[in-house]
Amino acid sequence: MQSTKYISSVQNPLIKKALLLKEKSRERKKTGLFLLEGMRELQIAKGTGYDIVTIFYCENILTDAPNNTFLQSFSADTLISVSAEVYKKMAHRDTTEGILAIVKSKEHQLSTLKFNNPDPLILIAEAPEKPGNIGALLRTADAANLDAVLIANPKTDLYNPNIIRSSVGCIFSRNIKVGSTVEIINFLKKEGFLVYCAALSASQEYTEVNFKGPTAIVVGTENSGLSEDWLEHSTQNIIIPMEGEIDSMNVSVSAAILIFEAKRQRKLTN
Amino acid sequence: MQSTKYISSVQNPLIKKALLLKEKSRERKKTGLFLLEGMRELQIAKGTGYDIVTIFYCENILTDAPNNTFLQSFSADTLISVSAEVYKKMAHRDTTEGILAIVKSKEHQLSTLKFNNPDPLILIAEAPEKPGNIGALLRTADAANLDAVLIANPKTDLYNPNIIRSSVGCIFSRNIKVGSTVEIINFLKKEGFLVYCAALSASQEYTEVNFKGPTAIVVGTENSGLSEDWLEHSTQNIIIPMEGEIDSMNVSVSAAILIFEAKRQRKLTN
Repeated sequence: MQSTKYISSVQNPLIKKALLLKEKSRERKKTGLFLLEGMRELQIAKGTGYDIVTIFYCENILTDAPNNTFLQSFSADTLISVSAEVYKKMAHRDTTEGILAIVKSKEHQLSTLKFNNPDPLILIAEAPEKPGNIGALLRTADAANLDAVLIANPKTDLYNPNIIRSSVGCIFSRNIKVGSTVEIINFLKKEGFLVYCAALSASQEYTEVNFKGPTAIVVGTENSGLSEDWLEHSTQNIIIPMEGEIDSMNVSVSAAILIFEAKRQRKLTN
Repeated sequence: MQSTKYISSVQNPLIKKALLLKEKSRERKKTGLFLLEGMRELQIAKGTGYDIVTIFYCENILTDAPNNTFLQSFSADTLISVSAEVYKKMAHRDTTEGILAIVKSKEHQLSTLKFNNPDPLILIAEAPEKPGNIGALLRTADAANLDAVLIANPKTDLYNPNIIRSSVGCIFSRNIKVGSTVEIINFLKKEGFLVYCAALSASQEYTEVNFKGPTAIVVGTENSGLSEDWLEHSTQNIIIPMEGEIDSMNVSVSAAILIFEAKRQRKLTN
């Protein structure tokens, strides 16, 4: 590897910029950049066409840096070696592989959504709040190889470090779009989707509906469920029967139960 | 409500004892006591026969304390009013209802496990590590009204504050037993259970097995899966087919998919 720049001061302007990207959603939106952490995440981001602007690595942790073939695949002026102190200040997690990067965001406009599949299966999450839940939803979307995940009325930007971490990189690899609830409902109507909204008070059990056509499974927040807009414009509101003392499951758990019932039904005809 | 003792010093020995119970698993084991937080959790614990030793309430937060009928259901010498400073020091969460309690633990011995149902459906989690995952598993167990949840080779005691919190009180209401993997396998064989172990490399899809007899669904950790003991002694190892880039889902998500497929099958015959 060619010799690269070395930064040992946490006061360095580039380090300060990276810290802002980590901490401030506003900064991410303003610049169109975000901070990514971890080798696997970086590999997935690169593999899915993200533009990697700057890589910071710490040789105290990434001890094979001089011979690391992945690092060598980047031009030398992309690479910056940082001291252990600087790395610790930038890193979000206690144990990572000694690698961070500034990466260009992608747009997630609903208008760009295209499907390769005549009967897409997609998940829609309205106003999800907890980054860990969004990450878990994306991991499930990955396992089920969903055709898209739509976030309606987002409460947080997708490049929040906790979403990146909890999605294990699925935030980069999945087909994700963002829009208002109204925009997404209009899109689904135009495209002829079956829209199944998870509701605590629905009369139809989720195992009794047909998930085989173009299907959107819609979930709300754990606290307040889905907005009236969704419940009124659904093809059918569906319920996972709950027989216990408390009346809610984690939203990522509920979504997974619905998605995998759809997968099961679809396999029966294939 | 009768006048109760008031504590305003975080140095008070009883407050120090409560803090130890919150923070130290060893202290919980030694004393057979634990610290519980939140009105709903306390109500569930009381309703399921837990012995409530001491209740701490903070009138700055629980403003209706003098007229609270639930508090009035306890004898005055159980109740202690604490200052806002003391409450803040004891409370685990940012926003709670101003109520904490020292409660007697229950035993969770496998030998005491009895079923009311001729075809029980139970979940077994081997060595779960993250309190949040255990809580999510218990919430799913509650929603599915499982006959029992068994923890094999536990890594943490069940009265960890994060488990109590993330289970939304299901830690108290569910039928939970603890034992070594070997003890539990022997128990399941003796009782004639179908034992289905979730494995990343199994050849049988989970939708293809019969969950209708006495059934145990067994899940391992996200990092290392199940131990060989389980995989060798199962009736059948089963897989949730994953079609994405990463090869794991959250363990509580996987467990829920398996449990609700079992529920679906069982409903078909009922």
